[in-house]
Amino acid sequence: MTRRKKIYEGKAKILYEGPEPGTLIQYFKDDATAFNAQKKAVLEGKGVINNRISEYIMTRLNAIGVQNHFIRRLNLREQLIKEVEIVPLEVVVRNIAAGSIATRLGLTEGQPLPRSIIEFYYKDDKLGDPMVSEEHITAFNWAATQEIDDMMAMALRVNDYLSGLFGGVGITLVDFKIEFGRVYEGDFSRIILADEISPDSCRLWDSTTNEKLDKDRFRRDLGNVIESYTEVARRLGIMKEMPTVIQGGVH
Amino acid sequence: MTRRKKIYEGKAKILYEGPEPGTLIQYFKDDATAFNAQKKAVLEGKGVINNRISEYIMTRLNAIGVQNHFIRRLNLREQLIKEVEIVPLEVVVRNIAAGSIATRLGLTEGQPLPRSIIEFYYKDDKLGDPMVSEEHITAFNWAATQEIDDMMAMALRVNDYLSGLFGGVGITLVDFKIEFGRVYEGDFSRIILADEISPDSCRLWDSTTNEKLDKDRFRRDLGNVIESYTEVARRLGIMKEMPTVIQGGVH
Ligand SMILES: Nc1ncnc2c1ncn2[C@@H]1O[C@H](COP(=O)(O)OP(=O)(O)O)[C@@H](O)[C@H]1O
Ligand SMILES: Nc1ncnc2c1ncn2[C@@H]1O[C@H](COP(=O)(O)OP(=O)(O)O)[C@@H](O)[C@H]1O
Ligand SMILES: [Mg+2]
Ligand SMILES: [Mg+2]
Repeated sequence: MTRRKKIYEGKAKILYEGPEPGTLIQYFKDDATAFNAQKKAVLEGKGVINNRISEYIMTRLNAIGVQNHFIRRLNLREQLIKEVEIVPLEVVVRNIAAGSIATRLGLTEGQPLPRSIIEFYYKDDKLGDPMVSEEHITAFNWAATQEIDDMMAMALRVNDYLSGLFGGVGITLVDFKIEFGRVYEGDFSRIILADEISPDSCRLWDSTTNEKLDKDRFRRDLGNVIESYTEVARRLGIMKEMPTVIQGGVH
Repeated sequence: MTRRKKIYEGKAKILYEGPEPGTLIQYFKDDATAFNAQKKAVLEGKGVINNRISEYIMTRLNAIGVQNHFIRRLNLREQLIKEVEIVPLEVVVRNIAAGSIATRLGLTEGQPLPRSIIEFYYKDDKLGDPMVSEEHITAFNWAATQEIDDMMAMALRVNDYLSGLFGGVGITLVDFKIEFGRVYEGDFSRIILADEISPDSCRLWDSTTNEKLDKDRFRRDLGNVIESYTEVARRLGIMKEMPTVIQGGVH
């Protein structure tokens, strides 16, 4: 087997050179980090579940016209994606107060927001991903005004679609983080959705009990992290394809 | 002498009921606070200087059509102002990196920004005045989209005018904080500039030496606070009207 070239190793995923120019292979690790990587653990099976959930969601988003980087899944831990020039922003959409917005604005966790709120964070681990506004984004040329508008419009579509998708299976979409990137076509570039959408990047609460089914179980030491991720996959109807994972048997 | 009704006592100023409905008297104290009032001091004469500098600047801004609350100065420490419904936002305009933006975005203090940047902070001492974006402002109804546009346009005019005013007397306008409020006319409201503009609310550096002539002298224990404020007043040509202040003799 020929060694593939590693392009980037992040906290949760590795990017390898893809089989064709303009493609990459995204490998989902079991590593979990929180609080700007101060807290770390290996959660056996997480990579397999997130690879599958992200495939499922990206495929469905593509079907409603939210263009994204997903091409096809290659195996349990890997998917083929379009290479993009990542916009150095984390785009967060919030429906219910939780996490940092609750702390910063003095809201009670679980309190519905008056309307969905989009936030931008500058992707820089050294700086702790500071929150930024359109003013900073355009002044420092992290994205153009038109790109911000495109990302916001796409983020709201993703929010609507995922609120429905999860809502239909008894899960409340509290908030989520997405990333975008540019694909170039000659002199022009277009913004598409990239990275992943999974319980690592969403807050998902059981609609009846408000039980957390997402990464907050890891952040807050609530236990049963993998069981909760698996429950999300099960409710989305995609468990049958990865039976060994829930036993933690896949590496 | 009849006791006037105190409407509000803040960290640096007191508001009293004005002589007519829709007016207030703004009294400038000598109290200085920093870091969300964790650091406190009394700087003798500060209130007198800031009352005078704010009068001077508001009067000039009014003359170029930036409508504001200033009506007239009453005495050394007091000015008559229009009562407004304060928008609970601190609007910051930055030309050069200093203070929190340098820390948050990893910039070097003194580095010119690629262009002027407007920031909004939610006025709430308990929360430490968190930075917010248009999304938060409109979602929580702190201001309407049109009001944000109006405040941004006015903030940029103030920045242009003050950059010229200070630039002409050898002072670099690094950044400043302003507040806005609503005045009602029947069912309609209009946004005007309120509060104060003074060395308490601006970063002002000597253009030749970069010496700080503003509240950072207090925040960072650099000494000569009142001397620096007085120097700003002197350069603006308004010292002759308050000769006793610089000797610290006015209470
Ligand atoms: N389609 C893509 N093309 C290029 N880079 C991508 C693409 N999708 C995601 N990325 C980037 O790949 C990395 C994914 O690995 P991850 O472990 O999440 O990294 P990080 O620790 O930087 O968040 C992220 O930096 C993300 O911005
Ligand atoms: N024209 C005005 N009408 C009503 N309130 C005003 C007006 N101008 C300023 N204010 C408010 O008066 C207070 C001024 O006092 P200050 O000591 O600065 O208070 P704070 O500690 O709240 O900043 C501020 O809260 C400011 O928002
Ligand atoms: Mg990541
Ligand atoms: Mg104040």
